[in-house]
Amino acid sequence: MPTYKAPLRDMKFVMNELLEADQHLAAMPYYKDNDTADADLLGQVLDEAARFVETEVLPLNQVGDREGCVRDEHGNVTTPSGFKAAYRKFCDAGWPGLDADPQWGGQGMPHLVSIAMNEMITGANVAWGMYPGLSHGAYSALAAVGTDELKQLYLPKIVSGEWSGTMCLTEPHAGTDLGIIRTKASDNGDGSYSITGTKIFISAGEHDLTDNIVHLVLARLEGSPAGTKGISLFLVPKFIPASDGSLGERNGVVCGSLEHKMGIHGNATAVLNFDGARGWLVGEVNKGMNHMFIMMNAARLGTGLQGLGLGEVAYQNALAYAKDRLQMRHEPRVSREAADPIIVHPDVRRMLLTGKAYTEAGRALALWLALSLDTEHHHPDEAKRKEAGDLVALLTPIAKAFMTDNGFNVAVQSQQVFGGHGYIAEWGMEQFVRDARIGQIYEGTNGIQALDLLGRKVLMDGGKKLQSLAGTLQAFVEEHEGDEAIGDYVNQLGKAAQQLGSLTMVIGQKAMSGPEGADEVNAAAVDFLRFFGHVVYGYLWARMAKLAQDKIDGGFDKDGFYLGKVQTAKFYFAKLFPETKALAATIKAGNDPLAVDDRAVFGWEPDLAHA
Amino acid sequence: MPTYKAPLRDMKFVMNELLEADQHLAAMPYYKDNDTADADLLGQVLDEAARFVETEVLPLNQVGDREGCVRDEHGNVTTPSGFKAAYRKFCDAGWPGLDADPQWGGQGMPHLVSIAMNEMITGANVAWGMYPGLSHGAYSALAAVGTDELKQLYLPKIVSGEWSGTMCLTEPHAGTDLGIIRTKASDNGDGSYSITGTKIFISAGEHDLTDNIVHLVLARLEGSPAGTKGISLFLVPKFIPASDGSLGERNGVVCGSLEHKMGIHGNATAVLNFDGARGWLVGEVNKGMNHMFIMMNAARLGTGLQGLGLGEVAYQNALAYAKDRLQMRHEPRVSREAADPIIVHPDVRRMLLTGKAYTEAGRALALWLALSLDTEHHHPDEAKRKEAGDLVALLTPIAKAFMTDNGFNVAVQSQQVFGGHGYIAEWGMEQFVRDARIGQIYEGTNGIQALDLLGRKVLMDGGKKLQSLAGTLQAFVEEHEGDEAIGDYVNQLGKAAQQLGSLTMVIGQKAMSGPEGADEVNAAAVDFLRFFGHVVYGYLWARMAKLAQDKIDGGFDKDGFYLGKVQTAKFYFAKLFPETKALAATIKAGNDPLAVDDRAVFGWEPDLAHA
Repeated sequence: MPTYKAPLRDMKFVMNELLEADQHLAAMPYYKDNDTADADLLGQVLDEAARFVETEVLPLNQVGDREGCVRDEHGNVTTPSGFKAAYRKFCDAGWPGLDADPQWGGQGMPHLVSIAMNEMITGANVAWGMYPGLSHGAYSALAAVGTDELKQLYLPKIVSGEWSGTMCLTEPHAGTDLGIIRTKASDNGDGSYSITGTKIFISAGEHDLTDNIVHLVLARLEGSPAGTKGISLFLVPKFIPASDGSLGERNGVVCGSLEHKMGIHGNATAVLNFDGARGWLVGEVNKGMNHMFIMMNAARLGTGLQGLGLGEVAYQNALAYAKDRLQMRHEPRVSREAADPIIVHPDVRRMLLTGKAYTEAGRALALWLALSLDTEHHHPDEAKRKEAGDLVALLTPIAKAFMTDNGFNVAVQSQQVFGGHGYIAEWGMEQFVRDARIGQIYEGTNGIQALDLLGRKVLMDGGKKLQSLAGTLQAFVEEHEGDEAIGDYVNQLGKAAQQLGSLTMVIGQKAMSGPEGADEVNAAAVDFLRFFGHVVYGYLWARMAKLAQDKIDGGFDKDGFYLGKVQTAKFYFAKLFPETKALAATIKAGNDPLAVDDRAVFGWEPDLAHA
Repeated sequence: MPTYKAPLRDMKFVMNELLEADQHLAAMPYYKDNDTADADLLGQVLDEAARFVETEVLPLNQVGDREGCVRDEHGNVTTPSGFKAAYRKFCDAGWPGLDADPQWGGQGMPHLVSIAMNEMITGANVAWGMYPGLSHGAYSALAAVGTDELKQLYLPKIVSGEWSGTMCLTEPHAGTDLGIIRTKASDNGDGSYSITGTKIFISAGEHDLTDNIVHLVLARLEGSPAGTKGISLFLVPKFIPASDGSLGERNGVVCGSLEHKMGIHGNATAVLNFDGARGWLVGEVNKGMNHMFIMMNAARLGTGLQGLGLGEVAYQNALAYAKDRLQMRHEPRVSREAADPIIVHPDVRRMLLTGKAYTEAGRALALWLALSLDTEHHHPDEAKRKEAGDLVALLTPIAKAFMTDNGFNVAVQSQQVFGGHGYIAEWGMEQFVRDARIGQIYEGTNGIQALDLLGRKVLMDGGKKLQSLAGTLQAFVEEHEGDEAIGDYVNQLGKAAQQLGSLTMVIGQKAMSGPEGADEVNAAAVDFLRFFGHVVYGYLWARMAKLAQDKIDGGFDKDGFYLGKVQTAKFYFAKLFPETKALAATIKAGNDPLAVDDRAVFGWEPDLAHA
């Protein structure tokens, strides 16, 4: 059975040494007033979170995969053994409201801590973690744009964990393309709306963990314009509560079936049929897409964390196996048995270091974004809020796509360390691969993330957000290019950052050059995101290596933690960062090699008469 | 439900136009005498094979995945619904003996045809195909080194498909490292041996398709030297046959359990307990590893075909979905609906073309190796046999590892084309991913293939085999470097081939430079194999593009098939081949970034007192 230990040491290194989080948080009155800015306190919360996750959540991971969720003939869904009891303990300890506002019963902790805990939860049991994860998304959207009445009725119950939340976007014919959804809303004239339609792929869509489920549903109000500009957001509770929060009648939303999936079996992926269900408008009419993006951005970072958590747990187990498994001789010998632990073989080390390098950089990125979220929401200085918000907007698609792609690849390579045993269910490695695969698909496929990054976040504002980050990188490069420890990395980083800028210019020019411009953006986007991801990870690894080398030079590396950082940075720049060389070439190749003859290559004739 | 059409047109293109197979086969008396060298006949066999596979084998793929194999308390195993009936039809039609020698009841067809059919079978249903696949391996080993008595008793039954075969190598503590196996053999003094031990991960190890199962088992004869030089190969039948082939007593080999696996559920992966089972020596005492390699090389090419077949079927289904699924607008519009078929979006085309480019090059490699196997075994000219044998030896690890890595990646990207639907079982895409994953692990992990390639096949003979292939490439480059159609590809190929040579020199020098030399080989091997794979695929794509362009120029491209080849070659060199740029850098980086401090990076202290 796989094991998992929350990477507390590394989390605290990132928070305290890399980000110097307590100094930043102390500058924000919200955290100062809530007494939640202190590094020691945050560390204690993380320790407690780790204990909870390792004790209560981890043991349910394989059970959840084996049992899955079961739907009865009435549409009721039972979660796997132990899920409900663990969820209850989770609520009793106040974890659902960790970073929620105290006015709704939350603890007012920074995102920094809740995001670190989310990494732990997904590492231990991603399917279980999705139930509170979705609730958190619903909380964010409702808190941001709900009416006071809706907030007062729903938020305390969501923050306490008594009720859970969902995001209802996808329909059978509409996934990426929400502009064509058909679910309808009509005004009941009493402040409520009547919602009718079918939503699919609704994670945590129906279950037995909570008394009530609060669905946030995209639907089209009668008479609204076509496309994304005619979509509104509605709150549709499973049971309609009275104003005191007591549960009233069952609403017209039923789970029609559960999907049989590749992984995340412990989470109920529901088809939800809304049949004249009563709903309440959240935010403004026809602004549903904008409002939903509040949830989606949080969900995208949350999905990135799944890649991180699953990469970490897969790496941890591969590392343990590699120390234990004796196979083939090595010179010099390190065992008196007939074979040596496979960790001595360089190719095994390559696979393990890939896991370590990607997860530790991913953690640094995730917590950097978490602190930036805190800054965006709570810094007293508007310019700081804006700067942080821009960074979050720019890097969220990278956090989602790069972290889930790397997480999946790390899970696959960690499975490979196990040889044949990696393919066998009882070892648990194949579950990590299956569970990690969904992160690349949902909450906007990674291809869509890439378009969001290149099209919307980089090109649409004329490269301003990118230039702001490039300035930070440039300053770092100039400061350290002669550095003995990291000068070589910094040079590589500086060249890649410049190349990112020039590639952006080239794509931007092509994008504006004619009717095929959009195709050029689409053709380059995925490789561009990956290139950008390496620039970000390269920056973070160079910074971590510098910090660590200083500690070593100061005589503070008692357990080798800092030497580990320095050597992993070296590995990253030698073995992973060079992917940028291939990506630069494929980005430059543009759309031309993709603009093939449809009939010849794909056996497909566009029906141009219909166009 | 996924569909599959055997890629007959492409197979015939490779056989007839790229390889000009009939001319080569006609030069070999074995095929000439068996009347199996004629291109039309081979084409008809392929057509018939496609009909059988599409009608009988394909419909059982999802059933097999859902039902799996079931073992009862006595160790009997039932295969999924329909597997047995399809297998019977397969035998009735004579398919098991397609390329077997007529003296044992085979049809004497070239490997070229049987390997093409194997691709079809794995594309349609890899789990089902493994049953006859393993039998074929057992046939090869027995035919090559068995005694006349064993051959006469067993081969006709294996060739007819009445009995099946297995390869029993792995033990719980010994997978990659067969030198440490513990299964024992003792001489019964009557020409038979008594075999005792436990074998795991035995594909097709126990089932209900055949009356008897012929296990080929690696075991250690009492008094044999330690390591791989003390291992012998034994034939252990499930039922001991009388000399007339009638079945006698049940032998002491029992299926102790079946593994629960990530995929290939329809194939029984058995733990086999040998408890004083009677066996017969195959080949020479203590030469078991050499003999087993006869099976393993065939099995490795067969595993490569799994990557090819699964890549092909995943690509076919992604292509069909991309034509059908309407999502997001594109300019110019190609649909009168609110959204266009996703095949118009460049990033979707990128994923599809990746599938097409890798599978078509893989098919060319597989059939080139198949024809080389035919030449190695049956050419009258010894020099030709040696040359072909060297090529097969050199390229088999590439066929196994590069084709299964690409096959898995193509399956994953094809799944991605489906968005959320790709994660749902009923669409079948996630099964392709799960089924494809094992190919990278079994029959020697892809890391082991890379070591076999770089250490044994390239460096151990001083680079002679590599130089021979390099000569072929060099001649091709010189002939076509000014060519209008492929000159650019040929230049890229020529540079990469030279770089492959220089990288080999560098690694070779490091390998001999001291005690850490072996680590340098181990550190470079996986990236080296991938680089080498691209050189081989680049060569094949350039050749195919040249052939196709000539056909277009001659006015012979009626349906666009050749234009498709030309444009896919362009895509390959623009978007996939540039991976070599990254690989060259990571190969050059060598073992140094992997030679990290064990305690600091991995929290591991080698127990050197034991060394």
